[in-house]
Parts: sequence; structure tokens; C-alpha cells
Amino acid sequence: MEAFTRSIEALIGSYESSGGINHRTGQNLPSKEAIHAIVADLETLAFPGYRQEDGIDDTNAAFVIGELSHRVARALVNEVSKSLEYGYRVAGRSGCPAACHLEALEAVQDLFEAMPRLRSVLMGDVSAAFDGDPAAKSTEEVILSYPGLEALTVHRFAHFLWDRGVPLIPRMMSEYVHAKTGIDIHPGATIGERFFIDHGTGVVIGETTVIGKGVKLYQGVTLGALSVRKSEGDQKRHPTIEDGVTIYSGATILGGDTVIGAGSVVGGNVWLTTSLPPGSRVYVPQGDFVVDCRGEQGAVRDACES
Amino acid sequence: MEAFTRSIEALIGSYESSGGINHRTGQNLPSKEAIHAIVADLETLAFPGYRQEDGIDDTNAAFVIGELSHRVARALVNEVSKSLEYGYRVAGRSGCPAACHLEALEAVQDLFEAMPRLRSVLMGDVSAAFDGDPAAKSTEEVILSYPGLEALTVHRFAHFLWDRGVPLIPRMMSEYVHAKTGIDIHPGATIGERFFIDHGTGVVIGETTVIGKGVKLYQGVTLGALSVRKSEGDQKRHPTIEDGVTIYSGATILGGDTVIGAGSVVGGNVWLTTSLPPGSRVYVPQGDFVVDCRGEQGAVRDACES
Amino acid sequence: MEAFTRSIEALIGSYESSGGINHRTGQNLPSKEAIHAIVADLETLAFPGYRQEDGIDDTNAAFVIGELSHRVARALVNEVSKSLEYGYRVAGRSGCPAACHLEALEAVQDLFEAMPRLRSVLMGDVSAAFDGDPAAKSTEEVILSYPGLEALTVHRFAHFLWDRGVPLIPRMMSEYVHAKTGIDIHPGATIGERFFIDHGTGVVIGETTVIGKGVKLYQGVTLGALSVRKSEGDQKRHPTIEDGVTIYSGATILGGDTVIGAGSVVGGNVWLTTSLPPGSRVYVPQGDFVVDCRGEQGAVRDACES
Amino acid sequence: MEAFTRSIEALIGSYESSGGINHRTGQNLPSKEAIHAIVADLETLAFPGYRQEDGIDDTNAAFVIGELSHRVARALVNEVSKSLEYGYRVAGRSGCPAACHLEALEAVQDLFEAMPRLRSVLMGDVSAAFDGDPAAKSTEEVILSYPGLEALTVHRFAHFLWDRGVPLIPRMMSEYVHAKTGIDIHPGATIGERFFIDHGTGVVIGETTVIGKGVKLYQGVTLGALSVRKSEGDQKRHPTIEDGVTIYSGATILGGDTVIGAGSVVGGNVWLTTSLPPGSRVYVPQGDFVVDCRGEQGAVRDACES
Amino acid sequence: MEAFTRSIEALIGSYESSGGINHRTGQNLPSKEAIHAIVADLETLAFPGYRQEDGIDDTNAAFVIGELSHRVARALVNEVSKSLEYGYRVAGRSGCPAACHLEALEAVQDLFEAMPRLRSVLMGDVSAAFDGDPAAKSTEEVILSYPGLEALTVHRFAHFLWDRGVPLIPRMMSEYVHAKTGIDIHPGATIGERFFIDHGTGVVIGETTVIGKGVKLYQGVTLGALSVRKSEGDQKRHPTIEDGVTIYSGATILGGDTVIGAGSVVGGNVWLTTSLPPGSRVYVPQGDFVVDCRGEQGAVRDACES
Amino acid sequence: MEAFTRSIEALIGSYESSGGINHRTGQNLPSKEAIHAIVADLETLAFPGYRQEDGIDDTNAAFVIGELSHRVARALVNEVSKSLEYGYRVAGRSGCPAACHLEALEAVQDLFEAMPRLRSVLMGDVSAAFDGDPAAKSTEEVILSYPGLEALTVHRFAHFLWDRGVPLIPRMMSEYVHAKTGIDIHPGATIGERFFIDHGTGVVIGETTVIGKGVKLYQGVTLGALSVRKSEGDQKRHPTIEDGVTIYSGATILGGDTVIGAGSVVGGNVWLTTSLPPGSRVYVPQGDFVVDCRGEQGAVRDACES
Repeated sequence: MEAFTRSIEALIGSYESSGGINHRTGQNLPSKEAIHAIVADLETLAFPGYRQEDGIDDTNAAFVIGELSHRVARALVNEVSKSLEYGYRVAGRSGCPAACHLEALEAVQDLFEAMPRLRSVLMGDVSAAFDGDPAAKSTEEVILSYPGLEALTVHRFAHFLWDRGVPLIPRMMSEYVHAKTGIDIHPGATIGERFFIDHGTGVVIGETTVIGKGVKLYQGVTLGALSVRKSEGDQKRHPTIEDGVTIYSGATILGGDTVIGAGSVVGGNVWLTTSLPPGSRVYVPQGDFVVDCRGEQGAVRDACES
Repeated sequence: MEAFTRSIEALIGSYESSGGINHRTGQNLPSKEAIHAIVADLETLAFPGYRQEDGIDDTNAAFVIGELSHRVARALVNEVSKSLEYGYRVAGRSGCPAACHLEALEAVQDLFEAMPRLRSVLMGDVSAAFDGDPAAKSTEEVILSYPGLEALTVHRFAHFLWDRGVPLIPRMMSEYVHAKTGIDIHPGATIGERFFIDHGTGVVIGETTVIGKGVKLYQGVTLGALSVRKSEGDQKRHPTIEDGVTIYSGATILGGDTVIGAGSVVGGNVWLTTSLPPGSRVYVPQGDFVVDCRGEQGAVRDACES
Repeated sequence: MEAFTRSIEALIGSYESSGGINHRTGQNLPSKEAIHAIVADLETLAFPGYRQEDGIDDTNAAFVIGELSHRVARALVNEVSKSLEYGYRVAGRSGCPAACHLEALEAVQDLFEAMPRLRSVLMGDVSAAFDGDPAAKSTEEVILSYPGLEALTVHRFAHFLWDRGVPLIPRMMSEYVHAKTGIDIHPGATIGERFFIDHGTGVVIGETTVIGKGVKLYQGVTLGALSVRKSEGDQKRHPTIEDGVTIYSGATILGGDTVIGAGSVVGGNVWLTTSLPPGSRVYVPQGDFVVDCRGEQGAVRDACES
Repeated sequence: MEAFTRSIEALIGSYESSGGINHRTGQNLPSKEAIHAIVADLETLAFPGYRQEDGIDDTNAAFVIGELSHRVARALVNEVSKSLEYGYRVAGRSGCPAACHLEALEAVQDLFEAMPRLRSVLMGDVSAAFDGDPAAKSTEEVILSYPGLEALTVHRFAHFLWDRGVPLIPRMMSEYVHAKTGIDIHPGATIGERFFIDHGTGVVIGETTVIGKGVKLYQGVTLGALSVRKSEGDQKRHPTIEDGVTIYSGATILGGDTVIGAGSVVGGNVWLTTSLPPGSRVYVPQGDFVVDCRGEQGAVRDACES
Repeated sequence: MEAFTRSIEALIGSYESSGGINHRTGQNLPSKEAIHAIVADLETLAFPGYRQEDGIDDTNAAFVIGELSHRVARALVNEVSKSLEYGYRVAGRSGCPAACHLEALEAVQDLFEAMPRLRSVLMGDVSAAFDGDPAAKSTEEVILSYPGLEALTVHRFAHFLWDRGVPLIPRMMSEYVHAKTGIDIHPGATIGERFFIDHGTGVVIGETTVIGKGVKLYQGVTLGALSVRKSEGDQKRHPTIEDGVTIYSGATILGGDTVIGAGSVVGGNVWLTTSLPPGSRVYVPQGDFVVDCRGEQGAVRDACES
Repeated sequence: MEAFTRSIEALIGSYESSGGINHRTGQNLPSKEAIHAIVADLETLAFPGYRQEDGIDDTNAAFVIGELSHRVARALVNEVSKSLEYGYRVAGRSGCPAACHLEALEAVQDLFEAMPRLRSVLMGDVSAAFDGDPAAKSTEEVILSYPGLEALTVHRFAHFLWDRGVPLIPRMMSEYVHAKTGIDIHPGATIGERFFIDHGTGVVIGETTVIGKGVKLYQGVTLGALSVRKSEGDQKRHPTIEDGVTIYSGATILGGDTVIGAGSVVGGNVWLTTSLPPGSRVYVPQGDFVVDCRGEQGAVRDACES
């Protein structure tokens, strides 16, 4: 096992030479596990009793919620402090940890102060999902099983922290729910009330996207950037979607100046890099592509041959 | 911390005013965690020894399976009772919990009676996956690592309960495996034998879809509805796919009257809202889109500029 | 409960008649849970301190890494032995378990010997992601929250074992991270340095794909096969992507002879089954599909009607 | 393994023929694990923050205690119901489960109503331990590390339930803490304020013992019965210890009519079956038992021979 | 932290120089945790449903017991193999691991074959406890809360393995329950039917003790050796207690030739190193030790002074 | 449930009025659970591989031990800091937490520096136990199953911290192992090499006891104080036991001036409050207490009557 011992030593040496280890002297970064636990608890605060058997009833609800609020707030202050300290370090600012802890405390207190409003918005999202999906049998079913709602729940919390300037954590929250739902909403995106994503897998919503009220999205929709140059990182690179727009599966809308006017409908697989006036309907024209087996090619070749 | 205490009180108050809390007097809804544990156990019953180290051998298999069957049956009766009680409440019917418990018991007993048949169907799906994928080296590899098979395993259980009229739970089961695989099969969909989904991420199969035998699907395929009006929630809104059809990645087939005839091949990215006769081959015609850098636009603009 | 007991007996009988149980006399296959735990530990070795609170600092790093290395190596030798024994059995070879254990030991020792090099490559991938995404604020953010990096980390380990001829396990590793990220990279794929996948959901990279250095991919890209006939399982069925190519979201490139020349840019939703010379730019021409409500059809019909 | 299967069948048959299995149709008995968890939680309510890191501070104490109170009350009502149902069954009474649940609810509510008083008594016990042990450095040390206090804490809860006529559970609680501390106090024993047991291992206090205020006991003290005939099970069989009595290690006091008068001191190893007037001092006379090696015998024989 | 690193190196070096580490090349010894888990499972097999919520009822009992039997048998074979290998090593015998595994298998199979008989004996012990304690309200209470029964349950299993010549494990089992109950029965002791230990703390029963039927013991009883010379390790060093003997608390009976005749009663605190004929009654004469405060001394001195 | 809510409020109020809650503003006390985990880890460092399956072998021992050392040291520094802060607060000193953390660090570093020496002493204790018990078959058996050794292992660590002036924690460590073994050694006691306690239940060794080399104790031995007046808390109140003394079960030796001379043997149940010269042998004279049934009394009365 001599060789194995040498391998381990080389591995340890590689952290020194190549980096990629999270420890540095002093404060650590937030860890994935800590953030995931916090997000799960925030989801419970949003919709208590749905995620796990919380044993909540009218008599103990206040205690259960209060205890959980304090617990998650404490954990969140701790992680936000780490991320702020990281932000200070990157920005070359001093004053941490005292200032960082204070800032973290304020950010978390503000989040909890905003909770009733955020919950009210989320209940509007539940209602929009129920109204928008003929397969939905009840609002309870929406809360229990719609991945779009879960992605949105986490987004509304993550976006709040993003707006407060908390580094790293909002993005970690987004990726937590991206992994679960296949829906990738950057925490910087601004999203109005009564938003509904159906099915959702493959949806991508970029950092500077602005979405109005009552918008509806299907699986595989991309709201993305035309430019991916690092130097344009601070500009508005993603589209604006006005109130009441519906975008069907697989559609792609790109560009910071692209505005989809209120009430428009964007058909499936449409590829848009320019703006649409309000009330527009766009769709991919359906060509005639029924072929016999003599003419097939590409992906269908061997199916005919078989 | 005065302010924080007020925030918690406001949060608690928000459940009163906006709802979204799962407790109500009396019975609760099924929780996500309970359903997830049940699904994992049902997967173990379908393919024992693959998910975890069950320590099964010829001498103890009967005991291990028997013990697990009783355990999962008990848990499932419990959760199905809750969901039936919820269904009664929504429908304004009385008679629960006595009638609900009895109905739940019967549904679960029927599920277990159907198990050997369901397993036989699943073994056919395994065989179809092995035959249909040149990269597959063995049926064991299919069971161990094909997300399409996992989605289908859960679907076949969920669909059985859906057919028995169990509310909420079939959909929660589907979403459990949607989150793991990116494959979103509504529990209402009717799917024939030897079904194979390769890769699978982004696949959506709607509630009233009917799929024949020996059908093959690739990633990103949508079998969806043309209409998403709530009032049409009870009609057949999703397509019918006949025996032996292959549908390549990214294809979209919409509408309750759309029938893809037996043995047809639908090429990648095809968008279909009308029926095809048996034996059809459809594909997207490949245009000439090689351009030089003077003509580029849209998503490729800054790639040329760089 | 007579009937239930009969159901269980029938279920147990079904393993006899239909198979699908992982026990057989003697050695078992690797289990999903064991492989998942190993992958998580390998990810920790790649980027210590990011996944969980490992409590690593300069004084204990050597011990923590050394202990973890030994633990994961032991577990991996155990699972690789099982998979090799399975491979011997399928191939009708004898000599296991002695030969299998030795082979497993060597494979794992080689993996650890390669670790510093693999980590160095991964740090290059981190850097490519940071350079390639205007939304990325730091390399730490990349390690903490980019699913593309996680998929690639697991791929580089899985591919090493694939090259060493280890059966089953590389594919199980790929599916573990496919489930988490929606990115499906076959462990057989050869991928060069500084590779970056953004967003990633729905990406599929086939078994015989060859990718050069500095390639960039977006969500929903398929690098697939034209032929899915079992008999062609040993040929190169997937494309070659040369250095510096960028492929935008939803593009599909198929076929073992298809070569995308160095520095090319493939636009979103492009469907390619033929080669491109170096420096090419291809894109889907944007048609004029703005319509008024009199002309709508398909997916947008009822949106206009509403 | 034929033989092993037969052994299991015989084992299963033995429950039928010999009994000893806790299931019977209908309700089960309380389980040890459930009661142990409840006792641990009651200890936390008595002295929050000492047993585990509860993260309690002034701002969240009310929520943490309230949540825990509801949780433990719910669990206790459940277990008390089972034990009452058992009591009804043994007594041949009908009316359960309705009456049993109601009785259980009342018993638990009364226990919580009595909590402030019980805690006040326990704080007196803490103070008595601090005053009575020269080795005690602080009351915190007493709460953190005195087994006598732990035994007494559990006893005061168990005795309350015993007085309410709850079957089985009080005795299970006593045995839980007997196992931890070696102090065996029957839940029926009546114990006054400011009671202190030092070291405690081997102490036995019988069912009908009555102990006054300010009594002090050392390890190995037995307060037992003269008669162990089943027919005398309902009489007072154990002694009465009046206020301010001290009993040193290993002393044995037996009999229901034996009264140790107030302020008496009973020396170590004393064996008493008759009463003592107040203010008595009793001790074992110290004989002269220093011997040379020629005269040793019994237990010391071979020590001399060595 | 230089110094700390040196301390660790010195600590690691100390295992080399002083021993005390359980690994050696090849097989390990059984670990405490493994044995403790096995003992807890054996207790469940003895009295199913009492230790934890096993969810056993008439329909699933056979499966639950069968599954548990196989699980505990497998674990026990594993640990017994280790201990036999240790025994072979100490004895300088060769043939392990093949012979050891076979021996272990036989020992465990014999244990399970003996299970119905052992359970029948244990049910007799339960009955003896109920008959012998006026405070016992039911046999269920005995099973749920009598430490003497728990000690005896474990002893009867441990003694079976001791008789089969299994090294180390029987003693580890005894110490497991010694720690829980304060009752220290050496696994070598031979104990007849209907044995009852009340309270039990401090009871010690030596290796070569022989106890008849219907014997009753109280807390603090020692059945020990006169000689503690290593050279006499193979002789009968502990007493013989014939049928129907009762021994009260704190009595000590020593010596391999000491025989307490059938039906005798040994009073509390009696110290015996010689035999008694059947039907004897022995007790410590109660002297007159009531003193006034002028004459006190020893342990009671300062009580009078205060 | 109005009443229940009022009960909870009263309970919460009782912490305010009666105390007994561990939180206070600022630092907390060490918790039982934290200390118990630390003790278990220290036991593993003393005898690696015995407590649980550590998977240690020659190749990884250094890493496993190093990792565990760092982990336990970090946890211990944390808890010692809390206890020192508590000590400062009680003593009215200022300077914490800075000074406390430094002191804690030094104390823990010194403990680890002393580890090789402490382990060497413990290996001597193992050897003494093996030599002193004819039932002991090997030193491995001693490490695996002798409670006396476990008590001593914990004592030697606790005493080290006691000597360093660490408050609270040494006593919590002692009580941890007192609960497991029934052996109560105050952390202040000074104990020489090659110490052996057999069986051990009920042993009490007081704070100022001094024990020489090669001393042997049996179950139920008390080395205690004559005076229990608080004012004498700082004097030597417990006996001195010189080298090579053996004390048999149930013996009691009291008083700070009592010295048992080297090589003495104290027989079972002996009660001593005065010194003995070296080489003494003392025993309880065995009276003639065989009685017939006409003369019995006390504890044996009803045995004769039955």
C-alpha cells in the first residue's frame, strides 16, 4: 500500500497547488448541506404540513411555527454571515465579522418580516396553477405535487435575499430546486404575481429577466441572453415578459431589449430575439413532413430500414 | 428581537388569512415524505436488491419480501385513507373514516394482487430497453441505471391507484419520480407493454394519453394538449400513440384527436397536431444554415465577434 | 387477510418466474445506495469542504483527506469487485473472486494515483465556467452551485473507471448525477479540458462522443446517434466536437461521422447530421410568425379564443 | 438451510403456545422505546438546555417549550391510552377506546397543569443536593451530573401518573431511570420535598414507602418489605421515614410498620426491622477484626497465602 | 499546532509500542456495537413487540419474525466467526476461516433450534417473577419493566453460546446487560428454571455457580469465589444453590464447595463460606444499636454535632 | 385546550421564577450529549477498534486516529471553553471568552500530549485485570467486556482535566461512566498504576481519595467521608489506600485520616473508620446464624411460614 499512501499525499498536495478546497484560515463558505436544510425549512414555513408529518393542529401551530422560525432564522443568520464575510473578502472590505453578523441579522429579520407578504404572493401562484391546468383537481394537489410551485417558492425567498445583496446563498438555493425540478430560475430574475410553470423540466430564466403578472410558461422554455460576454455581466441581458403572456413548451426568447407585449401567446418551439407588440400570437408554421420510407434520412433512417 | 416576534405572529396569522397549511381539524393530507418512502419500497418490491443492500438470498427472500410487503401495505393503507377522506370532503360525501379505511384496504390489496402481473409487465419493459439501446450491456444494467425504467416502474404503480380512483397519491408518486428522472408521466396516462424511454429528461406525457405496445421515446418528447381550458378537463386532451411507434428527441405531439398510426417514426423536433396513418415517417427537413460571420445574428452574434 | 398472504406468495413466486431480483447464489451486484455514497465522497475529495461542513483547516486537512481516501477506496474496491465478478460471469470467465479482487484493487489504486491530475483538469473546468458565464461572480460560486461542474466532476471519475473496463459502476455513477442535474453524459464519452455546460437540463452526450478542449454547451443539447440498432453497438455512433466549439441550447448533432470543426458555433435548436468545417457558424433562420387571432391554430388556438 | 427454516417455524409457533408476544388483536401495549423517548423529553421540560443543545435563549424559549410540550403531551396521551385500554381489558371493563382516550387526555393535562409545582419541588431537591454534598460546587453541577436528581425527577413525574391510576407506564418510567442510575424507586413511593440521594447505586425504595421532608440517603440503602407474599400486595409493606432523617450507605430498613422518627440518623450497613423514636442515632458497633495471617479464613485466605 | 501534530504522532506510536488496538492483520475481533445490536434483536425475538413498536399482528408475525431471525442469524454468524478465529489464533490452531465459519454457522443454527425451548424457559421465569413479587400487577408488566428478567433473557442466550465454546461474545453479552441492569451474571453460570431476581442492582453470579429451580434473589447478592488465584481458573470456584432457595438483599455466599440446601432461606447481609443443609434459615442477629448522641461515632459523628 | 395553553404558559413562567433552565444570556453550559459523545471518542482513542467497527488496519490507522484526534480535540476545546466561562462567571472574573478559549486550547493540547502516557498506564490496568481475575481468558476480553476498565479509562481522562482546573466537565464524564458501569469514581480521586475493580457495581470512590499502585477492589466497596459538612469541602475527607491493597466486596472505608497500609487485605462487608498498619488482614467474624423455623424473624419470617 506504499503506492496508495503516496497517492494520498499527492492528492493532499494538489489542494495546495490547484486550490478547490473550502477552508482557508478563518471563516468558511456556506456548505451545500446547510443551505439545503434551510431551504427545506423555509418551504415548510411557506406551506406547513405538506412536506412532512409535522403534527400541526390548531392548538400547537403557533408553537411549532415559532420554534421552526427561530431555528431556521438562526441557521440562516449563520450562513448569511459566512457569505457576507466572503463578499467582504472578495471586495477587499474590512469590518467583518462584526458588521457581517449585523448585516446578516438584518437581512434575515427583513425576510421574516416579508414572510406574510411572500406567502400571500405564493397563495396567488397556487391559485394561478389551479386555474391554469385542467388536470389540477384542487389547490391541495398543486401544493403537494407541482414542481413549478416548488421552484417558485424557493425563487421568491432566494430573490428576496438577492435583492438584499447576500452573496452565494441565493444561487445555491436556486440550484437546490433546479436539481429537484429541472427548472432553473436565476435568483436575480424579477417575477410578478400569479406566475405558473407547468411540467417545467428544462425551463431556464436568466438573471435580468423581468416577468409581469399572470404569466404562464411550459416545459423547456428559455428566457436567455444573446450575449454571453463576461464584460456585459452588469447589463440587462434577458427579456421582459409583460402581463398575461403565455409561452408554450420549447420556446426560446433571447435578449435584454426583447419585450413580449402584454397578453401575447408564444407558440411551442418558437425562437425569438425581437420584441412583440401586445396581443401578438406567434407560432411555428406546421410544414408537411410526412414522408414515405424511400425519402427518410437522418434520425429516422434505420427505423425505416428495420 | 421584538420585531422578530411580531414577524412570527404575522406569519402565523397569515395561515389563518391566506391558508396553505395542512392540518385542518381531523384528518391530514398525505405528506410528501410518507409517499416518497412508500414509492421507494414499492420499487424495491419490483426489483429487490437493486436499490439498497437488502441482504436477500434464496433462504430469506420469502421473509424479507413478506415483511416488506406488510410494512408498505400498512403504510399505504394509511395514506390512501387520508387521501380518500380528503376526496370525500371535497365531494361533500359522508361515511369516512369507516368507509375510507375499507376502500383503502381494498385498493391496496388489489394492488398487491396485481403485483405479479405488474412485475411481469416491468420485466417486459426491461427487455425492451435492452433491445432498444445499443449502449445497454445487460438487463441488470438497465435495472440499475436506466431512469426511463424507474419512471415507468413508478408510473405502473401510480396508474393502478389512479384507476382505482385514489386521489392525490398517484400524482405525488409521479412527481417523486419526475423530480428524480426529469420524466413527467401523468398517472392517468395509459401505457402498453414493452415501453422504452431513453435518456428521458424533459419527457412530458399528459393525463389522457394512450400508448400502445412496443413504443419508444427519446428525451424531450411532449405528448400534450392543444387546449388548456379548465372546462375541458374531463375530455381526452392528449394524443394516442399506436403500437410500435418511435418518437425521437424533442418531438411534440398535441391534441386528443391526434393518432400516430402503428409503426410510425416521428423525427426529432417534429411538431405535430394532426394524425398520421400507420407506417408514416415524419422528419424536420434539414435546411442549409451554414453562414459566415458577416451574416450571423441572434444567439450566435457575439460568438463571431469574439 | 388470506387473500393478501396469497398475493405475497404470488409476488415471491414472480421473482422465480420473471427474474428481476438481485441476489443469485454467491456475489451480489453493486447496489445503488452504495454507489451513490461513493460518488458523494469522491465529490468531496474533488472539492473538500463544499458539499458539507467537513471542519477542514490547515492543521487537520491531511488526516481528514487521508481517512476519507482510505474509506472510499475500501468501499470502491468492494463494489468494483462485485461488478467485475458480474462481468466475469457474463463473459463466462473463471478466476473470481481472487482475480476480481486484485483487478479491483488495481483499478482503485490507479484512480487515486490519477486524482491530482483529475483535480487539475477539474480546476480548469471551474475556470472555464467562470470565464464563460457573465452571471458567475467567483470560482467559489461555480463550485458551490453549477450543476454542469458537478456532472463533469462525476463524469471524469466515471470515465476513468470505464476506461479501466469496470462494468456497471461507471454507468451507475453517470445516472446518479443525471438524476441530480438533468445532464446525461455516458461514461464512455471522451471530453477534453476546460469543458463548460451552462444550465444543463436535458443535455445528452452519447457513449462514443469525442469532445475537444474549451468546448461550451447549453441546456438541451443532444450529441447523439443516427442509428440505434443493437448490432452497431460497438461502432462510433456519436459526433466529434473539435476544440473551441460552442453549441447553443436545444441543438441536436447526430452521427458517428459528424465532425464539428474547431471554433464553430452551432445556434440554438439547430439539427445537424452532417459535418461542419472549422470556424462555421450555423443558426436556424428566424421566420416571420407573428399572426393575428384569425389565423392562429395548434397550440395557440384556445389562447386566442379565451 | 432447511433446518433453519424449521427452527424459525418452531419459534413462531412458540409465541402461539407460550405467549410473550405483544400484539393481540386490537390495541398494543406501550413500547419501551416510546416511553423512554417521553421520559427524556419530560426531563428536558424539567431542566431545559441541560440534556442536549436545545439552542434555547430568551427570545425563543416560549416557542421551544411550547412545541416540546405539545409534542410530548401528544405522545403521552397515545401511550397512556394504550395502557388504560390494557387496564380495562385486565379488569374486564368495557368503554374503551373512547373512555380511555378521554381519561388519558385528562391525566396528561393534569400532569402539565402540575408542572410548575413539580418543577418548584425539583428545584428544592437541587438545592438540597447542593447543601448536602461538600463536593458539589454549584447547583448547575447538580443538575448536570447528579444521578440522584435524575432518578428523583423521573420519579416525581411517574408518581403523579401512578396516583392518577395509569397502569404500566409509571413502572416503565422508573425502570428507565433505574437502568441509568442504579436507583430503584417504585413509582408508588411517596417522597417529600428536599430529598437527596448521593451516589445512589443500589438504592431500593419500595411501593408503599412514605418519606418526609429533607431526607438524605446514600448508596445501597434498601427501604423494603418484610413480607413478600402476593396476598399482602395491597397493604403497606414498606417503612415510613419522617422529616430530616439521614440514612448512610448499605443500611436496610424493612417493614410497613417500621417508622424512623424525625431527625434520626441511621448508620451505614445497619439492618432495621423495628421503629426508632425521633432523634435516634443507630450504628453498627465497630468490632476489632485486625488479624494476622495465621488466623485468616474465608475471603481473605488466599490473599495471605500469596 | 505543531505540538498537537507531534502529540498525535506519539499517540499513534503508542499503539505500536503498548498495543491496545483492535485490528492486527487479517480478522478483527467482534466490536461492542455489533454485539449490542445482536443482543437487542435477540431480546426482540424472545418477547416481540415489547422493546419497540414492531407493528406485529397476526397477519405479519411470521414474516417479521422470519426476516428478523435471518438478519440476526447472519450478523451473529459473522461475529461468532471472528471470535472463533480469535480463539484459534490464541490456541495456535489452524484451519480458519473455513472451519471457523462452519463452526459459527452450526452454533447459530443450534441456537435458533433451541429458541422455542429457551423461550419456554423464559416464560417460566416471567411467571416466577409475577408470583414472587407482590408489587407485580401482570405478566406484561414483568416483561416490560423487570430488569431481572432482562438480565436472565440475555444470560440464557449467552450461556447457550458459552456451552458451545464460543469465545468472547458470551461475556460481551453479559456485560451489555450488566451495564443496563447492574446485574452481573457470568455467562458460564448454570441457572435452573423459574429463576427470579428482584431489583437486582449489584447482584454478582460467578462463572462456575450452579443454581437449581425456583430460586429467588434480591439486590446486592454475591455468589462468588473464595480464591481469586489465576491458577485455580478451571476449578469450580463458586457456590451451588439448590432448588427453592431464597437469598435476601446484600447476602454473600462464597466458595466452590459451598452448597445451600434446597428450600433454605438466607437472610439479608448474611456472609456465608460454608454449606447449609436443606431447609435452613440463616439471618444476621439484630443487635441493639440505638444510641444517644453522647455515644455516637464513625459515620454518624457529625450528624449529631450538627 | 385552553387549559393546556395556560399550563404551558405557567410552565414557561416557572423557569423565570424557579430557574433551572440552561441558557442565560451569552454562553451556555456544556450539554450532557456533547460530553457523552466526547467521552465515547476518547475511549476509542484509548482502545481503537473495540467500541465500534472502525475499519482500522495498518495502512489507514494514522489517518483514522489523526482525523478523530482533531475532531474530538475541537469538540473538547469548545466544551471546555463553555465550562471555563462558567467558572469565570461564578468566580466573578473577567477576560472571557478570549482567555477561556486560550486556556481551553492549552488544556486540550496538554491532554493529547499526555495521551501516550495515559494509554501506557491503561495498558497496565488491562494487565492487572487479566492477572487478577481467574475468569479472564485474555487481555482482549478485558478490553472488550470489563466495566472496571471502562470506568478507569474515563477516570484517567477526567482526572487529567480535573487537575487542570476544568470545571463541570470532569464530573460529567464520571457520571457518564457511572451510569454505564455502576462505578462512581469522583474525578478528583488520585489513583495509581495497575488498578483493578472487579464486577464493580456500587463502588464509590470519593473526591480526595488517594490510591497507590496495584490496588484491587470488588463490587460495592465504598471509599467515603466521615463528615459531610459543606464547610469541610476543601479538606481531605476520604481515605488513603497504599500499594498492593485488596478490598473485598461491600467493604466500607471512611475518613480523610484513614490509611490502609501497603499490602493489607480488607475482607468483605468490613466497616473501617480507622487506619490499618501495612500487611493487615481484617475480616468480619462469621457467627453461627443457622436457625430453625421456630426462631426466625425479620426478613425470613414469611419464608418459614410459607
